[in-house]
Amino acid sequence: MSNIHHYDQFVNRHIGPSDDQINQMLISMNYNSLDELIDNTIPQKIRLKNPINIGDAVSEFDFLKSIKATTCKNKVLKSFIGLGYNSTITPAVILRNVLENPGWYTQYTPYQAEISQGRLEALINFQTMIIDLTGMEIANASLLDEGTAAAESMHLFHSMRKPNQNTFLVSEKCFPQTIDIIKTRASPLGINVIVGCSKKFELNDNTLGVLVQYPNKDGKVGDYADLFKRCADKGIFTCVATDILSLALLTPPGEFGADVVVGSTQRFGVPMGFGGPHAAYFATRDKYKRNIPGRMIGFTIDAQGNKALRMALQTREQHIKRERATSNICTAQVLLAIIAGMYAVYHGPKGVKAIAQYLHNLAAKLETNLKALGFNQMNEFYFDTIRIELNSTQITKLKTLSVNKGYNFNYTDEYVTISLGETTQIEDIEDIINIFAELAGKTASISISDTAENRIPSNLNRTSNYLTHQVFNSYHSETDLLRYLKTLENKDLSLTKSMIPLGSCTMKLNATSEMIPVTFPELGNIHPFAPLDQAQGYMELITELEKDLAEITGFAGVSLQPNSGAQGEYSGLMVIRAYHHSRGDHHRNVCVIPASAHGTNPASAVMAGMKVVVAKTNPDGSINFEDLQAKVEANKDNLAALMVTYPSTNGIFDENIIEVCDIIHANGGQVYMDGANMNAQVGLTSPGMINADVCHLNLHKTFCIPHGGGGPGVGPICVAKHLVEFLPGSAVVNIDRGNSISSVSAAPWGSASILVISYAFIKMMGGKGLKKATEVAILNANYLKEKLKDHYKVLFTGSKGNVAHELIFDMNGFKATCGIEVTDIAKRLMDYGFHAPTVSFPVPGTLMVEPTESEPLAELDRFIEAMISIRQEIKDLEDGVAQKENNILSNAPHTSQVVIADEWDKPYSRAKAAFPTEHTKKAKFWPTVSRVNDAYGDRNLVCSCNPIEDYIEN
Amino acid sequence: MSNIHHYDQFVNRHIGPSDDQINQMLISMNYNSLDELIDNTIPQKIRLKNPINIGDAVSEFDFLKSIKATTCKNKVLKSFIGLGYNSTITPAVILRNVLENPGWYTQYTPYQAEISQGRLEALINFQTMIIDLTGMEIANASLLDEGTAAAESMHLFHSMRKPNQNTFLVSEKCFPQTIDIIKTRASPLGINVIVGCSKKFELNDNTLGVLVQYPNKDGKVGDYADLFKRCADKGIFTCVATDILSLALLTPPGEFGADVVVGSTQRFGVPMGFGGPHAAYFATRDKYKRNIPGRMIGFTIDAQGNKALRMALQTREQHIKRERATSNICTAQVLLAIIAGMYAVYHGPKGVKAIAQYLHNLAAKLETNLKALGFNQMNEFYFDTIRIELNSTQITKLKTLSVNKGYNFNYTDEYVTISLGETTQIEDIEDIINIFAELAGKTASISISDTAENRIPSNLNRTSNYLTHQVFNSYHSETDLLRYLKTLENKDLSLTKSMIPLGSCTMKLNATSEMIPVTFPELGNIHPFAPLDQAQGYMELITELEKDLAEITGFAGVSLQPNSGAQGEYSGLMVIRAYHHSRGDHHRNVCVIPASAHGTNPASAVMAGMKVVVAKTNPDGSINFEDLQAKVEANKDNLAALMVTYPSTNGIFDENIIEVCDIIHANGGQVYMDGANMNAQVGLTSPGMINADVCHLNLHKTFCIPHGGGGPGVGPICVAKHLVEFLPGSAVVNIDRGNSISSVSAAPWGSASILVISYAFIKMMGGKGLKKATEVAILNANYLKEKLKDHYKVLFTGSKGNVAHELIFDMNGFKATCGIEVTDIAKRLMDYGFHAPTVSFPVPGTLMVEPTESEPLAELDRFIEAMISIRQEIKDLEDGVAQKENNILSNAPHTSQVVIADEWDKPYSRAKAAFPTEHTKKAKFWPTVSRVNDAYGDRNLVCSCNPIEDYIEN
Repeated sequence: MSNIHHYDQFVNRHIGPSDDQINQMLISMNYNSLDELIDNTIPQKIRLKNPINIGDAVSEFDFLKSIKATTCKNKVLKSFIGLGYNSTITPAVILRNVLENPGWYTQYTPYQAEISQGRLEALINFQTMIIDLTGMEIANASLLDEGTAAAESMHLFHSMRKPNQNTFLVSEKCFPQTIDIIKTRASPLGINVIVGCSKKFELNDNTLGVLVQYPNKDGKVGDYADLFKRCADKGIFTCVATDILSLALLTPPGEFGADVVVGSTQRFGVPMGFGGPHAAYFATRDKYKRNIPGRMIGFTIDAQGNKALRMALQTREQHIKRERATSNICTAQVLLAIIAGMYAVYHGPKGVKAIAQYLHNLAAKLETNLKALGFNQMNEFYFDTIRIELNSTQITKLKTLSVNKGYNFNYTDEYVTISLGETTQIEDIEDIINIFAELAGKTASISISDTAENRIPSNLNRTSNYLTHQVFNSYHSETDLLRYLKTLENKDLSLTKSMIPLGSCTMKLNATSEMIPVTFPELGNIHPFAPLDQAQGYMELITELEKDLAEITGFAGVSLQPNSGAQGEYSGLMVIRAYHHSRGDHHRNVCVIPASAHGTNPASAVMAGMKVVVAKTNPDGSINFEDLQAKVEANKDNLAALMVTYPSTNGIFDENIIEVCDIIHANGGQVYMDGANMNAQVGLTSPGMINADVCHLNLHKTFCIPHGGGGPGVGPICVAKHLVEFLPGSAVVNIDRGNSISSVSAAPWGSASILVISYAFIKMMGGKGLKKATEVAILNANYLKEKLKDHYKVLFTGSKGNVAHELIFDMNGFKATCGIEVTDIAKRLMDYGFHAPTVSFPVPGTLMVEPTESEPLAELDRFIEAMISIRQEIKDLEDGVAQKENNILSNAPHTSQVVIADEWDKPYSRAKAAFPTEHTKKAKFWPTVSRVNDAYGDRNLVCSCNPIEDYIEN
Repeated sequence: MSNIHHYDQFVNRHIGPSDDQINQMLISMNYNSLDELIDNTIPQKIRLKNPINIGDAVSEFDFLKSIKATTCKNKVLKSFIGLGYNSTITPAVILRNVLENPGWYTQYTPYQAEISQGRLEALINFQTMIIDLTGMEIANASLLDEGTAAAESMHLFHSMRKPNQNTFLVSEKCFPQTIDIIKTRASPLGINVIVGCSKKFELNDNTLGVLVQYPNKDGKVGDYADLFKRCADKGIFTCVATDILSLALLTPPGEFGADVVVGSTQRFGVPMGFGGPHAAYFATRDKYKRNIPGRMIGFTIDAQGNKALRMALQTREQHIKRERATSNICTAQVLLAIIAGMYAVYHGPKGVKAIAQYLHNLAAKLETNLKALGFNQMNEFYFDTIRIELNSTQITKLKTLSVNKGYNFNYTDEYVTISLGETTQIEDIEDIINIFAELAGKTASISISDTAENRIPSNLNRTSNYLTHQVFNSYHSETDLLRYLKTLENKDLSLTKSMIPLGSCTMKLNATSEMIPVTFPELGNIHPFAPLDQAQGYMELITELEKDLAEITGFAGVSLQPNSGAQGEYSGLMVIRAYHHSRGDHHRNVCVIPASAHGTNPASAVMAGMKVVVAKTNPDGSINFEDLQAKVEANKDNLAALMVTYPSTNGIFDENIIEVCDIIHANGGQVYMDGANMNAQVGLTSPGMINADVCHLNLHKTFCIPHGGGGPGVGPICVAKHLVEFLPGSAVVNIDRGNSISSVSAAPWGSASILVISYAFIKMMGGKGLKKATEVAILNANYLKEKLKDHYKVLFTGSKGNVAHELIFDMNGFKATCGIEVTDIAKRLMDYGFHAPTVSFPVPGTLMVEPTESEPLAELDRFIEAMISIRQEIKDLEDGVAQKENNILSNAPHTSQVVIADEWDKPYSRAKAAFPTEHTKKAKFWPTVSRVNDAYGDRNLVCSCNPIEDYIEN
């Protein structure tokens, strides 16, 4: 065979600096090669001996050809399965301008409110929509899926429980995947879950709360007013899982007394995608706002006193002790929540209602005709889902008949349910009638009148208004919505505008060729519970991705189910827990965590029923081995696990990582490696290489899934051979590994539709490309260190003076010299057109910078220029050249309104404020509000989870 | 059948105002209904008696389903046909962020340079790329296709001819479609075209010029140095049509003396699309710059003295008399030129060369193997196309063999040519070898060495550099290019940002659902000369679109071949000419044109060999019937045609249009209706209804093809029954109508791949929706008139005081009252976030405003607010409140640099300059340069074609 290849290689498109530039950078740092740099960065003993076995890189052109062929192995039948996933139409203007637009999907979580007003507004639209439709008082900015949202309600109730309240009653008519997650999550907390008929719920002093589904999994609309009144009387919490679209016609749970309402907004324009990602919602009463999980967007004012939006930090109490920690929720499903919110903006209240009525009407027409054929429809009242009684022979026959005609229904042993979706048309109804006629051996005489039908009980017919805010009544033409979307998009700094150098977040290129397949209908239109023989494309992709991730991590098995990083942590610990239990070690419940760990680590451990013991870190950022040893030995009888991030959250490859792991194993524990920093490992070392037992990966960091403005994320776990059997199962689809824990996410493979992004990245990079990416990520970080170390204090370096893929600048000194705080520097960077690095994590008063391999040299140089220029601005303050009480840093960021105002009372010039570099003169990005009022909880800017200090025992 | 329909109707997404708002607007204008408004606008006698028969509207969802099914009827074989169209890979980042991005495709032609610096830069990249690769001195910003570009070279030569130079020698080895267009265009000019072997060209005093193809249509690379030297010695002009990619390896024509180099840039990333649209190029010598057709981008300075880009107006002389008029070129192929330019930016010189070498190498490997099988390869030298001698039996057999294996080749009676493209892979070469082995009855023993091959004659191996400018050496990673694209995009005002109220341009919604199919591979990857049985999807779409356009215009036949509006005009007149000739009326050559006509009209007429006679217009803007009558009668023996725009370019429905047509017919002429204003006719009246014989349509105006920043356009012609037989044919594909004129565009159906946009629009609107769109277009224009008539003088209204779909504001008075010119108002509108309306067309000193039906009421109100506010600014000058010598209008537009500068010497505030309205405070769009120096040719701002005055006989 020939060696003639097309010259174009994806690796050269993914990696920022060219080979010439890489050499130039190395020379400036006195290295002769990338190898030499890496040899001086990663300890030799943990370096991989052989290249990872991923195969050769595939070109973008070939990849797109082959992925089309793979996905076409999925058979797209029309889905009437329901159970939380219905067909929907993504309005084309939203599809193209949000879901397929890097201006939206490459944004980061809106921590920096001044350059995030666009998505903050989109999210407050989402919250408003949820509040309106559920009839509740507050809502968060989305959760991972309906099942985990329901579990979060249980956690919320648990956090507010009275003594003895320890039993959670779950209706057997909830979705099976929801019940399964409730069980998973209840067990480590010691909550007793009782699944049964909601009419027979026994309410007593032990009852913590109840969970019902409305309409229920069969489609039936029940009345919970009486149950909820009795609960309220007894101080029992109530949660309703609902179908967001049904609430356009049904009395909302807020009007019959629910404490929490959860559900999915998938059917508001987000493709089913074999399970996700979709935005779940969580709405509750104002009085619980301090305990709400996840993030909430709220109004505040900026430095000019103008209204501004900000991410209200997680209002669940910040300083609770570990025994009260109830959630590790960090990520939301921002991109999907934005789509769902825009769906409501575009359709407005009339449109949403019309869609609901259309489906309700079609369902009733279907019922009428099936009844005419002699079938028994079992739901007295329903919204869009009917239930037909069948015997087992009929069911077998119907399965074949329906699939042959291209339809999927949902079957139990006694009946079939048929749940409609927005794509359902009158022709489908006719087809289904004919299918049932054939089943009955009859000829259908289809009769579909124009009369509007109503199968909703009169007391549950919705009478209250919704979506009354102007935003839901303004943008109903495509031109209107397009401009609204663009206005919001352009308020926000995304990767399309400049580097987002957030340490620990790995904001790298999300390549177009990786994103293109995401919106293939062959991936989007598959129901997560579709028969697997219809999902062979997905199966192939999933199997191959699992294989590659196992190879990359040096492990034996992978679960793609966890749909966020924190979810992955939790799942990994639950697998470790199951492992100990399987060996009879039910007492092993101590989890050791270094002080430098990310806040989600201890929260996840507590959720997994573990007791957190914090091990100290040395002044140089490394793990304090002596303290670790002492803590481990003190807890050796009960040691369950060590959670360790590698390279550490300080951006350093600890030299003694293998010894650390050994000591855990020697004392009966398992090692959990947090994969947040995998971008410094791939192809060079691996979790398996350091002797860890489990790791999670953030596919949305290392493996190119875009952050979407704060979600979706995917957090698979990879495990050593002895843990494979415990990987999560599913209540609906058989994916049991032998001894699987119950499910952690609603869908068997979590956010399946975006797995193709990571798959694409791996295949187009190939083994060599992945390794090179890691090397250049480390190069870029060390290049910044070299260029900035004389200007700012670099907090930690490894034994040979290098950092890994990120580095920390210590800004604490400036407070004393001139009153400048790290936030001032972060905000001033906005004037230079940059997103701030990570602020005050993992060390207060610092900036953690991670450039990733995708940032071009020119952009690194612009960032260096900005940082040096800011250092001069600080020096001007230190030297008394600038005025402390009115200075360019504390006043940052400067909006166009401010610098163009008639009044200018600053001692520096307008131009210096707005155009501090030549580049900003050419391509200025404007913050849209002045500095927001950060009165609440500044220290948690990195993540809304609890900081590690809260877990240190006094 | 039931009447249950999904509520979502495209018509409500396409039309800006809601039904409630429409009523509110009508009430404010004292009308009770849209019908009443229309009755008072369009003369009753030309109103359609019956609704147009287009059928019911199809929903977006249904349309996208059905168009996918339709396009999948195309069979996408691998194309090795060549002849100017080769497979190419659109880099995904360009595909998604340019071709699929409304930020780029909804832009208008960059007449307003201050808000167009992004695309101007992209176009100057294109020009630079062409200049570099061809080795020429100047290039324009693209032409319609290679065939018409070659014809334009002949026009250029003709405009500079010496007496007697009347013969144009064309190599028989030029592409057949090019030769055909040359013949079409030569005939009315009286140029004698001789097609023959370039080696035997007889050069004499009559020889105007020569045209050769390099590499030629067979793929052979010939040496024209000697021929060109002999031409130069005799003062004979030379033109080379070349393959842009081949010039990466071949000595460029600029180095062997060509006067003009033309070709297509299709293979630089633009899909074949069954013929177009693609950007052709036209490069020539600096000394011919005053005569270059089309548009050219150039540098100038702005009011601050900073460098700025602008569209250098057509440098072909502006004031030549009609007998010298040689081109009606208005539109370029901007969007496609931008893609091709970005392709070069992304690949850079090394990448472009590598692609060329890759193909050259593969072609040589193929040759070697086919020779080994005993075949004779006939091209001594070649770039990427080989030629295999075959007998007729072999040819027949090969056609079947190759198609069965999924390959298309190009056949003559004696040989087959195989032309490679960027998607060609080594596996394809192997397949082709095997196909030929089977043809030869042998088993191939394929041998493909790694050795680089060279089949280029040593004296034609390129030695000069190209793409040396920094822009071609900076953006090779995806992150780099993405940010560069976004930076340029955000400099430009497109429909995603605000209304573009350009009169006569119909900047309406280009809906996403209309655009989605454009990038279906089933439409993109079909060669225009593929066997028609592989293009059945296209055939279906084309047939249906022709049918609908015929119905809408009230005509009998349609040709979709003309790929611009001006091209349509020309084609229509050529059809009229053929009709007269067929009746023996060779002398009928007078074309009467009203003085208010668009400048392209007389240019097209001259190109069609006609003599222009201008008819006067009345002070009220209507045609002066007496003058028309007089002119017609004076020319009745030679009367060929009347060209009339309806409603007129003054935006008025002339009452006596039927009488006007009658008088033409009575005197033996034909009526050509310019379809520029069809947006005021569809569904209410029609060209057929007013008794016209031909019209052209601008599908890029009325039928939603986006303007793409100045192209693509599509200008089909519709004709009455007696003219159908004359509609254009093709030299390659048999589309003869019985008596077809030769072709006007290179591809049989012109820009075929974007026809689906108009098709989508028509199908999703349905007959009723189309009518309503017209009504609301008229409503929106009259609403503006009502709200602004007390502030500005509305120049023309119809008999009942209404305007059609656009209106003209007369700004001439302000010069006297306060020194303000229309341009000042246009530029000041930028500060308010609006694109200027059409300036000084059709009347000097005016603004012509066309809101279209897609503009929402809120946007109309913002425009009204801006115009009223500007009127107050003018009044402040008139009243002496503001300073004439330093005023906010003359200084407009204000860039951020200017208003943030340390110095502020203006008598008005910075904030008033930048944020004149509340809306601009919320969503400011910044011009990136101050007012450009418009020293050259201000009066031609509307279009670079010659203004009508030049044709008025003195």
